[in-house]
Amino acid sequence: MAATNRAWRLRRRPAGEARVGDLELVEEEIGELADGQALVKTKLLSLDPTNRIWMSDIRGYMPPVPIDAVMRGLGIGEVVESRRDDMPVGALVSGFLCWQEYCLADDSLLEAPLTVLPDPLPGPESAFLGALGHTGVTAYIGCDLADLREGDTVVISAACGAVGGVAGQVAKQRGAGRVVGIAGGPEKCAHAVEKLGYDACVDHRADDWRDQLDAATPDGIDVDFENVGGPIMDHILGRLNIGARVVLCGMIAEYNTYNEGGEHSGGLSNIGQLIMQRATIQGFLVLDYGHRFEEAIGYLGGLLGEGKLHYDETIVDGGIDVAVDTLAELFDGRNMGKLLVRVSD
Amino acid sequence: MAATNRAWRLRRRPAGEARVGDLELVEEEIGELADGQALVKTKLLSLDPTNRIWMSDIRGYMPPVPIDAVMRGLGIGEVVESRRDDMPVGALVSGFLCWQEYCLADDSLLEAPLTVLPDPLPGPESAFLGALGHTGVTAYIGCDLADLREGDTVVISAACGAVGGVAGQVAKQRGAGRVVGIAGGPEKCAHAVEKLGYDACVDHRADDWRDQLDAATPDGIDVDFENVGGPIMDHILGRLNIGARVVLCGMIAEYNTYNEGGEHSGGLSNIGQLIMQRATIQGFLVLDYGHRFEEAIGYLGGLLGEGKLHYDETIVDGGIDVAVDTLAELFDGRNMGKLLVRVSD
Repeated sequence: MAATNRAWRLRRRPAGEARVGDLELVEEEIGELADGQALVKTKLLSLDPTNRIWMSDIRGYMPPVPIDAVMRGLGIGEVVESRRDDMPVGALVSGFLCWQEYCLADDSLLEAPLTVLPDPLPGPESAFLGALGHTGVTAYIGCDLADLREGDTVVISAACGAVGGVAGQVAKQRGAGRVVGIAGGPEKCAHAVEKLGYDACVDHRADDWRDQLDAATPDGIDVDFENVGGPIMDHILGRLNIGARVVLCGMIAEYNTYNEGGEHSGGLSNIGQLIMQRATIQGFLVLDYGHRFEEAIGYLGGLLGEGKLHYDETIVDGGIDVAVDTLAELFDGRNMGKLLVRVSD
Repeated sequence: MAATNRAWRLRRRPAGEARVGDLELVEEEIGELADGQALVKTKLLSLDPTNRIWMSDIRGYMPPVPIDAVMRGLGIGEVVESRRDDMPVGALVSGFLCWQEYCLADDSLLEAPLTVLPDPLPGPESAFLGALGHTGVTAYIGCDLADLREGDTVVISAACGAVGGVAGQVAKQRGAGRVVGIAGGPEKCAHAVEKLGYDACVDHRADDWRDQLDAATPDGIDVDFENVGGPIMDHILGRLNIGARVVLCGMIAEYNTYNEGGEHSGGLSNIGQLIMQRATIQGFLVLDYGHRFEEAIGYLGGLLGEGKLHYDETIVDGGIDVAVDTLAELFDGRNMGKLLVRVSD
């Protein structure tokens, strides 16, 4: 068996963007397996905006990662040694493998059970951390909560992101009238329209993004699938139609302001428009919808099989070493689609 | 018939608090009545936070009052001359009488029809602009939308206001576990507990109001009946429980920032908690619930008859002249309960 593991341990809560130093890469011995344990070798690590939330001690939906603990994260890996019947050697598993090369899995150590993936896989394994995984299901559930109606104008921020890229296509499939994306830079905007089927895409890096957004939504906005927060969300609130629904999936614009002590900056000015337009904001988390993963993955897998779902992924090589630096790409918007680190082949 | 009318005309959009000068009191001749017209003499004028919204050109739920038009407002008056069968002389009517001594009512001039009140009245006429009028119905509808559950901790800002004062009692009647008010000053807080039945009331003028609010809601907050917005709402968002509901009725804290050109300041930082707690904000306007006024007034009138509904009103004498100055009392919190101006006896 592998003698050593390399793992990122959280040494302090980041102020601003997470950097090496906030986390430390340590080398640790792996002992003998006990009964009920399995050793999983991480193949792919999923980087998600919510990773930054878990590093902070803001009041979150899971406990903060304790100082000195291995950083929490989703991944896919292969069982390389096992003293558990439910996790045979060679099986692919997905779940909280955390930011490390090897995960020693047992019932007590895991925060959530690992899922053994079907063999053979009905798609590429990376898709099970993306379009057919937690981010795809998030897109599906959000579209469901948005109560889409025929002819609706739907706006989706982070339009080419892991969630947004799927959400735009699901919204279109489910009868929305006009689906407008918001993304950073002309390349992403072109991709959104050409590959992801958006009717229009607004470049939030352009000086005139507010005018672009107004022009792209001439009849106002009925649904906002909100992944970003901040000034973009605020401007959207100002264009909501009567009875509009905001499904609040993420607010990546503010996560890097989640600092020690739960303090953070930022702010929305247009909440009053919720009254004027009798509109609703509904926050949601995909982890509440475990009972609908099968339904969602069935739906998304069906679209994929019919060639009706395009998905993007950015897989960064370099092993576990690059995890911290790669996380920054999410916040800079350098990735297209799902961002993954290849930890081992 | 009366030869002259005195009316407040909006001359410019206020910057900050509305002042004399933003509106001008003008004396105008009243002509002969034509067929289909009735002349209504205003008895009571209702002052509501939303008056300030109507003066601005922010994107509101009704068109802004045009510059030079008579200021919009709800009132109760008596028909003193009539060439309409549905509005006989002597009848009491309520509706958009506007900020003037006499309202010349006809189908085309009125923004919304006047309602002829029943004769005899089942309560004091002022109540039909308060606990049995639009503010009472707002409280009733808001409690309904909040989907109150047994044992819920409910927080109500502007706890002694026209809406909040009724909402606290309705929430209690409908099974909420703990109802916590937020009001300005020790006198109002004592009143909230002693007369309005709140379990506790937090003084938002005290330096330690955040600590007070935390202590008053040891099990977090399940429902926020939000009338104020600003830092109070922001702090409440930080204490929401999983599945919490915010019914957003008003944001009086920011209305005086609704300035020319629709610009305004302010901001909420804790919207991200809607995700963490899978919580919902639902904006609503009582004017969407015209079909439920009868139900609501029946319920509230029933409570009143059984001695289970205490309501407060502050009636300011001084005639139409004092309307602008009196509006400021709402924003300073000088009034207790419904704020009215007696325009004539």
